[in-house]
Amino acid sequence: MIVVLKPGATKQSAQPLLNKIDAAGLKSLYLPGVERIVLGAIGDERILASLNLDADPMVESVKPILSPYKLVSREAHPSSSIVKIGNTEVGGDTFTVIGGPCSIESLNQSLDIARVVKDAGSHVFRGGAFKPRTSPYAFQGLGEEGLKILRKVSQHTGLPTVTEVVDAGDVGLITEYVDCLQIGARNMQNYRLLKEVGQGRKPVLLKRGLSATLEETLLAAEYIYHEGNHQVILCERGIRTYETATRNTLDLNGVAWLKQRSHLPVLVDPSHGTGVRELVIPMSRAAVAVGADGIIVETHTNPAEALSDGHQALTEVMYQELIKEIMPIVHAMGKKL
Amino acid sequence: MIVVLKPGATKQSAQPLLNKIDAAGLKSLYLPGVERIVLGAIGDERILASLNLDADPMVESVKPILSPYKLVSREAHPSSSIVKIGNTEVGGDTFTVIGGPCSIESLNQSLDIARVVKDAGSHVFRGGAFKPRTSPYAFQGLGEEGLKILRKVSQHTGLPTVTEVVDAGDVGLITEYVDCLQIGARNMQNYRLLKEVGQGRKPVLLKRGLSATLEETLLAAEYIYHEGNHQVILCERGIRTYETATRNTLDLNGVAWLKQRSHLPVLVDPSHGTGVRELVIPMSRAAVAVGADGIIVETHTNPAEALSDGHQALTEVMYQELIKEIMPIVHAMGKKL
Amino acid sequence: MIVVLKPGATKQSAQPLLNKIDAAGLKSLYLPGVERIVLGAIGDERILASLNLDADPMVESVKPILSPYKLVSREAHPSSSIVKIGNTEVGGDTFTVIGGPCSIESLNQSLDIARVVKDAGSHVFRGGAFKPRTSPYAFQGLGEEGLKILRKVSQHTGLPTVTEVVDAGDVGLITEYVDCLQIGARNMQNYRLLKEVGQGRKPVLLKRGLSATLEETLLAAEYIYHEGNHQVILCERGIRTYETATRNTLDLNGVAWLKQRSHLPVLVDPSHGTGVRELVIPMSRAAVAVGADGIIVETHTNPAEALSDGHQALTEVMYQELIKEIMPIVHAMGKKL
Amino acid sequence: MIVVLKPGATKQSAQPLLNKIDAAGLKSLYLPGVERIVLGAIGDERILASLNLDADPMVESVKPILSPYKLVSREAHPSSSIVKIGNTEVGGDTFTVIGGPCSIESLNQSLDIARVVKDAGSHVFRGGAFKPRTSPYAFQGLGEEGLKILRKVSQHTGLPTVTEVVDAGDVGLITEYVDCLQIGARNMQNYRLLKEVGQGRKPVLLKRGLSATLEETLLAAEYIYHEGNHQVILCERGIRTYETATRNTLDLNGVAWLKQRSHLPVLVDPSHGTGVRELVIPMSRAAVAVGADGIIVETHTNPAEALSDGHQALTEVMYQELIKEIMPIVHAMGKKL
Repeated sequence: MIVVLKPGATKQSAQPLLNKIDAAGLKSLYLPGVERIVLGAIGDERILASLNLDADPMVESVKPILSPYKLVSREAHPSSSIVKIGNTEVGGDTFTVIGGPCSIESLNQSLDIARVVKDAGSHVFRGGAFKPRTSPYAFQGLGEEGLKILRKVSQHTGLPTVTEVVDAGDVGLITEYVDCLQIGARNMQNYRLLKEVGQGRKPVLLKRGLSATLEETLLAAEYIYHEGNHQVILCERGIRTYETATRNTLDLNGVAWLKQRSHLPVLVDPSHGTGVRELVIPMSRAAVAVGADGIIVETHTNPAEALSDGHQALTEVMYQELIKEIMPIVHAMGKKL
Repeated sequence: MIVVLKPGATKQSAQPLLNKIDAAGLKSLYLPGVERIVLGAIGDERILASLNLDADPMVESVKPILSPYKLVSREAHPSSSIVKIGNTEVGGDTFTVIGGPCSIESLNQSLDIARVVKDAGSHVFRGGAFKPRTSPYAFQGLGEEGLKILRKVSQHTGLPTVTEVVDAGDVGLITEYVDCLQIGARNMQNYRLLKEVGQGRKPVLLKRGLSATLEETLLAAEYIYHEGNHQVILCERGIRTYETATRNTLDLNGVAWLKQRSHLPVLVDPSHGTGVRELVIPMSRAAVAVGADGIIVETHTNPAEALSDGHQALTEVMYQELIKEIMPIVHAMGKKL
Repeated sequence: MIVVLKPGATKQSAQPLLNKIDAAGLKSLYLPGVERIVLGAIGDERILASLNLDADPMVESVKPILSPYKLVSREAHPSSSIVKIGNTEVGGDTFTVIGGPCSIESLNQSLDIARVVKDAGSHVFRGGAFKPRTSPYAFQGLGEEGLKILRKVSQHTGLPTVTEVVDAGDVGLITEYVDCLQIGARNMQNYRLLKEVGQGRKPVLLKRGLSATLEETLLAAEYIYHEGNHQVILCERGIRTYETATRNTLDLNGVAWLKQRSHLPVLVDPSHGTGVRELVIPMSRAAVAVGADGIIVETHTNPAEALSDGHQALTEVMYQELIKEIMPIVHAMGKKL
Repeated sequence: MIVVLKPGATKQSAQPLLNKIDAAGLKSLYLPGVERIVLGAIGDERILASLNLDADPMVESVKPILSPYKLVSREAHPSSSIVKIGNTEVGGDTFTVIGGPCSIESLNQSLDIARVVKDAGSHVFRGGAFKPRTSPYAFQGLGEEGLKILRKVSQHTGLPTVTEVVDAGDVGLITEYVDCLQIGARNMQNYRLLKEVGQGRKPVLLKRGLSATLEETLLAAEYIYHEGNHQVILCERGIRTYETATRNTLDLNGVAWLKQRSHLPVLVDPSHGTGVRELVIPMSRAAVAVGADGIIVETHTNPAEALSDGHQALTEVMYQELIKEIMPIVHAMGKKL
């Protein structure tokens, strides 16, 4: 960590900071320059951060040298991790496709869609039972009834399932019904929830927050990992920018960056990432090519009647087209579906 | 609601949409143009939104006419609301000042800071007991011990208190100890939490999310209001933009807009809104002048030793200077402290 | 165009607006709703925009139905355009690769790099002679001397060339030396410059502005097209967002969207789009897969000594690796290099 | 400047970088840490930046210690500068009000509006003759005819004038007609234009770019200053963010920050900064209170017929109300109008 002092600081005003660094068992450096005094602090960045050196009125700025996450970084764990959802491996040389509706609406709807998903050769079925909705007047999901449907779909089709958990108090319940717990974008920094799934035994699909930095995303994963659950899958789902032609801006830069910095598998959600049905297929192709480990896609047998997010759901025909179009890119990347 | 159909749509392809509008008890309009067919739907925008007309493959875009929030809008409730925290009124012709540390660290620390806050003529004491922290390695707050300290501070000083609640499961506990529950920026769209405080009896200080639009902020308030709790105070605390010279960008445009669109009181948090100690006083003056109903400011008797956010905490001397500098602006605005 | 009136508006207050619409030779509609009066205006959106209906104090909002660009839209021109840079076609079933240094530094440097670019099978050589630099203390380019070097490189290698033009007054000069004029991100809304190249005879590579919307980008292209020059190539080069791990956020959503809305060829600049050398290859693969018509990449035989942007320049070995890695994706997309 | 090397770097790989720093006449430091080697470079940050150390493949990141601007910084020039537009001083204890229409439309329109502006006690008249417009189909301004009108308005009213210059080639012409040249947001990084006005003799009103950082804004001012023209006024006019309820987000944080870091006067443009007529007055009050040196406001005697930006223009009555409302805040700040 580098600490830049304000103009006017003296060796004397630097002393308490140097003492604080030394007292924490780290090594301090005093580096007077022409216009500023700079201090160095060598050692574990996590301890350094806890010293809150930036709070000192003589400090102009603090520049960390190392990343604040450790367990999920590739420096700590150079080989790529593989996480299993049911019997499906995420990571490695498989490109995983997760498909299903935004919301579980009924058993029949779910079975119909699951058939499309399975017939196309996808690996996992997704569907929301507890829905975080911007408006209190929108459909809020079927709750536990939806979870029961998810279990039945899994029994009928053999597909493992993933669903979103929105509250720490629901983790136990949802764990009984599905194979993977999703933390949605709105909850990426719900630390109580992160800790709760971190103490659980099911894999966690962690979506990047709507305006979370990549570093904050890895810190959220670090919360889960730090509690003992190492089965974490990251998911880029679009960030909020000034552009309004698309619902979000899918940050594939971020996917490439995450794959280089972290050993965790990284999925892409082109449905939320674009919010536009017609853009899902091209962005899925791009997700394969950038090196993502899979995609999670919304599909519906009758989008016009979907209770939520129908505008971004692929029809059955489009879902089949999706698989057909990504296939040659998957092979070009040396992977298999 | 205006529905624009895709090029190539015909009267026949518009018919199912018109039927759907009529079936919901609303009035439909068929408006063929030169290059596009446009449909109108007249009636309650909340019902219209639930029709999910944008999911239809023939629909190019949907343009709402009315705002999706109702209860918190000034159209529904023209006169400004006043919310009470303990005996202190927020709204009306008082400019409310809430001060205190980021985190409750100990009884002595809290009493010292509360004395500064009270002596300067502030109205409410703030302090965090449950802290949402980006890194799992950072100080996470004292928990219930912190709540007990808050109660003691209130008993000693007579100041009412506000603290953050981060999980729906904690609402009952925290309600026992403090006068106002704060929903932090990271939880503005934690709908379970919004519903829980909406069913409670304590006023709620709702902070705008880090990248929440103003409309989403009012919809979050609508969640609470809709559950029956009408004691909602909004708070602008800075949004995330590309600018990095300040921690966030304090959106005073948003404060002016919220005051015109909603009857709820609106506070400003210049501490998080800037993240820079030296900018807190000028932005507090601006908050008064733009028409905010108060400010919530972090202060610490020894910022260099604060366990969190010390870099943005005002010292005792600066806190007194803050009150001195806002006073003439408060009077110029025809209000009192 | 849909015009929403403010609460309290009456038929009488709507009349002047209706008259204004009719007077412009368009068709007006009066649509009274429950809470708002809505007006419709049917006809050319460009004429409607010029009526400035949003300036009327009784107007709450104006919602356009059609896009404000025409000539560059796929509605006006359904088949994809092909633009020629020298003898190289951009668009169609070729995936075009443009390579070269950020700045032209000397003849020897340029010839060395051009050899790498050509040997790898790229189509066009790029290099800056007039450099827009954020700091007045940074290298500003060789000017006309750089243009002369570009011409010599073209003569030696047979590669056509592209260079940036930063001022309307330079268009004539630069046109003498190179095969394609680039409008950089900072000048995308320099309308004098757009008009000048629009009156010229050389193809124009138009980069999206750092915070330009997709619609604004097409309007900038419309400026050039409208002046008579139809040889316009669009280029996505990353937008400014809150994320700082990468220099910019490469918006491949935008590429997919532009390909659907416009007939113009679309390139991707993964060098500026990421600002990180290690991310250029994966994002180039993604650019192929999303459907872009080519890439423009910075490369240098000695990046550590480059006078500008060396941190994002590929080394010779990386440039060869780039071509090797995109090749199978190009083929999977049914294109050729 | 601090240079962090990549993992795996050795003393040997650091040597060329250390030599480069020494060869530039600066002082190098070798600081090996536990997980990274860090290098220090002490001296003029402008020379350091020109070494392009970040381009070296062994470099992970480069962290500047000092700001890259010098001449416009308060460190170089502690007392606040005062710039004169005609006989009006901008800066010091005057709060300057500049008013007028977006576009000069005719002599009569301009004289009518100038009368409103002058009668309300404003100091300077503004109006656009060369208009940068997003669409090629929008009104592009009267050109030199507009400049002649501006001169007549000045002769009739005695008010000095400011107008926008959009091209380096126009600087000479415009200098003949008005008292101050405005660089608009779209041209803040048109370096040719900055250099041209920097060599001129008229004061320059430099607007912050739509997505320019504060540091980039000061670097743009540094371009002008560096050419010899020290009469530079900065202007915050709203930045582009994800929020769409307002046209831009007026960044008053930025105004407070600029006043602390730079000696130049800082104005605020609440018209473009909000894009909403109803928000101009509250944001003008806030601009006074935050410590800005003045405001530049659009007003029109008949906004509904304005040829551009009528939706954000104040009516005559609102303009008078504006002055009435800011007056007590101006006095509370110890300034005069």
